[in-house]
Amino acid sequence: MKTLTINECAEQLKNADNILILMHRSPDGDAVGSGYALAYALRSIGKTAQPVCSDNIPPKYSYITNGLDVQEFEPEYIVTVDLADTQLFGDKLIQYKDKVDLCIDHHPSNTGYAKYGIVDGSAGACAQIVKKVISAMDIPIDKNIANAVFTAISTDTGCFKYSNADAESYQMAAEMVTCGADSFFINRLMFDTKSRSRLELERLALNSLKYYNDEQIAVIFITKEMLERSGADDNDTEGISGIPRQIEGVKIGITIREKEENNFRISVRSAGDIDVSAICTQFGGGGHKAAAGCTIITDTLSDAERQITNAAGAVL
Amino acid sequence: MKTLTINECAEQLKNADNILILMHRSPDGDAVGSGYALAYALRSIGKTAQPVCSDNIPPKYSYITNGLDVQEFEPEYIVTVDLADTQLFGDKLIQYKDKVDLCIDHHPSNTGYAKYGIVDGSAGACAQIVKKVISAMDIPIDKNIANAVFTAISTDTGCFKYSNADAESYQMAAEMVTCGADSFFINRLMFDTKSRSRLELERLALNSLKYYNDEQIAVIFITKEMLERSGADDNDTEGISGIPRQIEGVKIGITIREKEENNFRISVRSAGDIDVSAICTQFGGGGHKAAAGCTIITDTLSDAERQITNAAGAVL
Repeated sequence: MKTLTINECAEQLKNADNILILMHRSPDGDAVGSGYALAYALRSIGKTAQPVCSDNIPPKYSYITNGLDVQEFEPEYIVTVDLADTQLFGDKLIQYKDKVDLCIDHHPSNTGYAKYGIVDGSAGACAQIVKKVISAMDIPIDKNIANAVFTAISTDTGCFKYSNADAESYQMAAEMVTCGADSFFINRLMFDTKSRSRLELERLALNSLKYYNDEQIAVIFITKEMLERSGADDNDTEGISGIPRQIEGVKIGITIREKEENNFRISVRSAGDIDVSAICTQFGGGGHKAAAGCTIITDTLSDAERQITNAAGAVL
Repeated sequence: MKTLTINECAEQLKNADNILILMHRSPDGDAVGSGYALAYALRSIGKTAQPVCSDNIPPKYSYITNGLDVQEFEPEYIVTVDLADTQLFGDKLIQYKDKVDLCIDHHPSNTGYAKYGIVDGSAGACAQIVKKVISAMDIPIDKNIANAVFTAISTDTGCFKYSNADAESYQMAAEMVTCGADSFFINRLMFDTKSRSRLELERLALNSLKYYNDEQIAVIFITKEMLERSGADDNDTEGISGIPRQIEGVKIGITIREKEENNFRISVRSAGDIDVSAICTQFGGGGHKAAAGCTIITDTLSDAERQITNAAGAVL
């Protein structure tokens, strides 16, 4: 993949038409925001452009997607946004895996599957790069683009709480608010709304909370029975593993999730300097220093609990 | 109170010395951030200046307060920050209630108790005004000032989630990050850390969750027994009343807190367009459209529940 500058990306897009914009499967706020921001921008200068995804876009993003009618055309130029690897194209888009003209991404792990690309690992959200390309095309930021870019930045930085929220993230958020982004509506929808089944799962998980090692380790459980009782699905489990680590004084937060018979998925989170990936590699897993995971195969939940809390206790 | 411009405030402060900066009792992030930002700034140009408060400053703000040693002096010029009313001075500071030279505030309800003042109700945090005054004095923003101002903006906007987070809030946050504010550390400490007793109170409150009117009304309870069992204090109850309103589909979220015998404090939150202050005024309470409260005097918790859910159901 040949690396381009922001201006070179802008130049390529200005010279192209009938542009298909690919988003990754299981699309999140940055995928949807990046894809739609670029589509709105390209259409505003008369291009035919359509964002596409193998999976349905979750209805909570409808305030972004509703303003764009579907254009059907024979694609002449193919762009990917926030798409690190062709494995994330999904069934419907895998046909394009060797045909991507331009890749705009912020994952350092990007596999370089496109002809041309820009990969900036320092960008909090991929949409921050997309926005720079849009501005390099001299396209004004309208309300639709502003909502899309703001959503991407806010969701990918966990409402500005993650370490990837840098000065540019705040700066660009300010610009998007000035250009009409409904920041209050968006942040409330994304971060202050829970499904009833999610809240019920949280309640059951909190009821299972246990402490180890002078309350420096906190453990919660998500059993198959809890999932059934709460009616929770995979979307509802997102973020649950962050709960035990939030507790003041807890250094290691552990979530044990019963996946199949004898199969327990373990998430480990560090609240401080402890490297929890070292705990997980002992069980064949891995991850980052502050967030890692592994699978333990054993007969009972309580044995999985014993194994992981012993390993965690040993590093304290 | 004579209204001053930002530049006139800056001029007054440049001509003053031995400056006492008053913060309101029960100090929050905006009070502490505004008071300390101004003190750091004034000391950096050689002034003697000290922020003071009737109550102890919560230890979680020590990263702001630690950098400033205590100066004792006979005050010649008295400033208040984020202080709407002399009733909020508290016991130790009430002696200054008729002696305030300059008031910097963002509460439209400010009672105008000072000789001079600037009250800008459009500012998300009082520290946004303080920062402008500091810049008008041509004082560079160092890391201490940046941490103080960032904390004030982030906490007063609920980590950029409340409707008062505007373009200026994001813009100033970007500037503070560029000037060295530890935004990740601050947001994590303020928004991603819970005391064990708070989490236990949340667990008990979630266990009490009930729905009314086709799940459009959700109610949680905080009884004296729950407070005792969890060991939670008043700090730990902050934000609990936001929980029922978070639930998807819920239009009115109600929290019923047992205060004293036969005395129940009711918080009502609206997730949409319903004006919940109209519900609370029926019981002699009041508040805003989206957040209101009242007290119901009755024999039993269940009667308080019956009264408030009936009143809420009637407006759906």
